[in-house]
Amino acid sequence: MSKDLHIVKIGGKLINDQASLKEFLVAFHKLDGPKILVHGGGRKATEMSALLGIETKLIDGRRITNKDTLEVAIMIYAGLINKNIVAQLQCMSINAIGMSGADANLIEAHKRPVKDIDYGFVGDIDQVNPKALEGLLAIDITPVLCAITHDGHGQLLNTNADTIAAQVAIAMSKEYDVKLSFCFEYPGVLYDLDSPKMTMSQISEGEFINMKTSGTVNSGMIPKLSNGFDALKGGVGEVSICGIANLSNKENATTLTL
Amino acid sequence: MSKDLHIVKIGGKLINDQASLKEFLVAFHKLDGPKILVHGGGRKATEMSALLGIETKLIDGRRITNKDTLEVAIMIYAGLINKNIVAQLQCMSINAIGMSGADANLIEAHKRPVKDIDYGFVGDIDQVNPKALEGLLAIDITPVLCAITHDGHGQLLNTNADTIAAQVAIAMSKEYDVKLSFCFEYPGVLYDLDSPKMTMSQISEGEFINMKTSGTVNSGMIPKLSNGFDALKGGVGEVSICGIANLSNKENATTLTL
Repeated sequence: MSKDLHIVKIGGKLINDQASLKEFLVAFHKLDGPKILVHGGGRKATEMSALLGIETKLIDGRRITNKDTLEVAIMIYAGLINKNIVAQLQCMSINAIGMSGADANLIEAHKRPVKDIDYGFVGDIDQVNPKALEGLLAIDITPVLCAITHDGHGQLLNTNADTIAAQVAIAMSKEYDVKLSFCFEYPGVLYDLDSPKMTMSQISEGEFINMKTSGTVNSGMIPKLSNGFDALKGGVGEVSICGIANLSNKENATTLTL
Repeated sequence: MSKDLHIVKIGGKLINDQASLKEFLVAFHKLDGPKILVHGGGRKATEMSALLGIETKLIDGRRITNKDTLEVAIMIYAGLINKNIVAQLQCMSINAIGMSGADANLIEAHKRPVKDIDYGFVGDIDQVNPKALEGLLAIDITPVLCAITHDGHGQLLNTNADTIAAQVAIAMSKEYDVKLSFCFEYPGVLYDLDSPKMTMSQISEGEFINMKTSGTVNSGMIPKLSNGFDALKGGVGEVSICGIANLSNKENATTLTL
């Protein structure tokens, strides 16, 4: 029988605020058994770009990544945010190790081909190599993954953190019963942004397709849900959207179903 | 009989130049057997600080690290430089993993106490934990260490890369025959900066003390040599100062002796 593995993706808004981040890390710390944290970038990369006079351009929530914005993404995601999270987890006696997709060749990607839009140095994932993660988990080390991948030819690439979480979850589901949680600022997917406690308990893929067609799903939720359904279809046992307070018990969280 | 382990520290000036860095990584790649790379920061942190309007202050070659300069150091050392080196090594089929001292709790340090000078967020090393490094080397992963440590209470600290190299070498010498190389822009320690090919073949600790007293040693060499003698006294089998071209054969390199 395979073992449980929690994979938790923490979104940008929770990272922006030191108090929320701390609260999240305490909740993450309380999850039993082996676990992996995947983090997004948050506002800091945009702020740093602004300080350096680099224009930030987003299309459908995805950053257009030229050479300069890639450098900022590497500095902020793999450097500042990743190492601060690792240091805070160490302080809670979680033996964390921060990694990009280049480290231990964890995530190989290719630069997204230019069609209508040139996304620049954005990586689409080709392969997650689960062996290194399994080796680390086996010696009680907790991987903390940032949203940077590489192409195997020396080029680092910016990659959506929701996609990383989903693809890592799929790769790890061969050996583990994976529970994938997308943790954000609400307890689950809301019916209405004006009622931040009224969450949907379940969303099926069919309902998600209808929600997209009818425009009743917030654009920020689309990548999270798309990646969540990809994960389910790829063999991940449980996928949910939740907040910090219900990360462990999933009360009022939204569970995805096929 | 214990196994050989190469630990190579690469200095800032070689990192500043992409062509030198590439040349170094090719030379590093050619070293047989398990190896660890330790890298300094180079000019990039100073440049980034300048771009962000942060003043850089050095005393005896050590950066005075306030909150802002620490953030820059983390971004540049643990982020940009570390991940670029890792991606380039992966491209040469070296399965590298980039780490700070916080990752896998590798290097615990404490904030340097304020005496005459307040160095700010500078860490003096308390302990290197060799187990994680041994575990990684055992599965053919090559650790790439940057000059950031942590205090175990959530605080990251800026730490001299020469010192990290020496202390990691000492910790690893319990299980390995460690060969520690400080690789910089000359083939060895020079008699005279005007004759960059005339290197000293050996320096004993007594000679080093005399050189310091007489002022005939360049101030930039002092931390490298001090750390080198610390390593020798701590049980490291071989310590040398070399360049890229003689990293492997040590021809014209300077060997330290007690």
